[in-house]
Amino acid sequence: MDSWLETLFVKTPQDGFELAIKLARMGVKYTQPDMEKLKKGRAQYADDAQFLIAASQVIAIHYQTIAKANNYWKT
Amino acid sequence: MDSWLETLFVKTPQDGFELAIKLARMGVKYTQPDMEKLKKGRAQYADDAQFLIAASQVIAIHYQTIAKANNYWKT
Amino acid sequence: MDSWLETLFVKTPQDGFELAIKLARMGVKYTQPDMEKLKKGRAQYADDAQFLIAASQVIAIHYQTIAKANNYWKT
Amino acid sequence: MDSWLETLFVKTPQDGFELAIKLARMGVKYTQPDMEKLKKGRAQYADDAQFLIAASQVIAIHYQTIAKANNYWKT
Amino acid sequence: MDSWLETLFVKTPQDGFELAIKLARMGVKYTQPDMEKLKKGRAQYADDAQFLIAASQVIAIHYQTIAKANNYWKT
Amino acid sequence: MDSWLETLFVKTPQDGFELAIKLARMGVKYTQPDMEKLKKGRAQYADDAQFLIAASQVIAIHYQTIAKANNYWKT
Repeated sequence: MDSWLETLFVKTPQDGFELAIKLARMGVKYTQPDMEKLKKGRAQYADDAQFLIAASQVIAIHYQTIAKANNYWKT
Repeated sequence: MDSWLETLFVKTPQDGFELAIKLARMGVKYTQPDMEKLKKGRAQYADDAQFLIAASQVIAIHYQTIAKANNYWKT
Repeated sequence: MDSWLETLFVKTPQDGFELAIKLARMGVKYTQPDMEKLKKGRAQYADDAQFLIAASQVIAIHYQTIAKANNYWKT
Repeated sequence: MDSWLETLFVKTPQDGFELAIKLARMGVKYTQPDMEKLKKGRAQYADDAQFLIAASQVIAIHYQTIAKANNYWKT
Repeated sequence: MDSWLETLFVKTPQDGFELAIKLARMGVKYTQPDMEKLKKGRAQYADDAQFLIAASQVIAIHYQTIAKANNYWKT
Repeated sequence: MDSWLETLFVKTPQDGFELAIKLARMGVKYTQPDMEKLKKGRAQYADDAQFLIAASQVIAIHYQTIAKANNYWKT
């Protein structure tokens, strides 16, 4: 796969959160690289609360990693 | 998205808990930005114990991050 | 919400476990503040093993946070 | 509840694992203190692989806490 | 139960992964010691992707513990 | 099993992510070594959003381990 993740260091807590979202999505994309199937699955579940909570959980796990890498953006 | 997360540092353990809730919700909102679909999903599941426990779990993961960032509010 | 969490520091490992339970419950309560709906959901699932294990998992995650905050009650 | 957890410090990695199991079970017991309902739920699921894996996961989370508390039983 | 876990220290990252698998399995075995029921559950789910992913998750949690205990096999 | 994991140390954050994916897959493979059954399970679930999110979650847990081992690729 092309380069998509060069660093875990970002400027702000919000940038870190958005990077966590990117990592969560890339975990899905590596598992199912076929974009058509991916979209089909997403369309079925996008308004399913269990799916949304599960996605939020993966983001939370990645955010732990990123926040720690950035020393919680302590100045 | 507009700025919504400027710092992980908060005054009290309870403030930290409420920030964890905010992060859990934002994880959902980034995944499904369409507020109508979001509300529909939530309405269906809001009294479902499995959903509520799953939401509580995401909060718990974020709370680990926030509590550590704040050094557990040791004075 | 009123003040309900003033400190993460407790005297014993068991007190810490009971605080973890409180945090797990508060995560549910913030997500569904309507006590009637909450009780209805709980009544349906209270003898469901999957629900009980999920609740135990949230407690386990909070216990990690609290045990670390208290330095594992090392004397 | 009576005293059931006086310390997180145990002699061996296996003792720690067994303590993790105890914590996982106590998380269930605090959530559903009615032993009859508890047994009923357990009887239904005890040979369900999803339930067994979920139980193993809660044990794994508590084992992280206990192993760290004991500094991984480094001598 | 007989002694089955004497140390968390192993020589290589792969040995650590295999120990994580052992811990994940022992978590199941302590929860359901009846080998007949265990095999029955496993037979039903062994080709179920949700079960396999859940098993992989428990392994991942134990691997965090073991990798840290071994200081990530830094030489 | 043959040697497949010699080190947790990799050059870049992206290499680490790809190693996390490998660990997640190996957790599945050790649990179900029969490649035919594995493929059958995967074919059924590969476009199921819940499965994809669960896979992404296991990757996230392993990524925590690998990112920490590599000290977050701080230069």
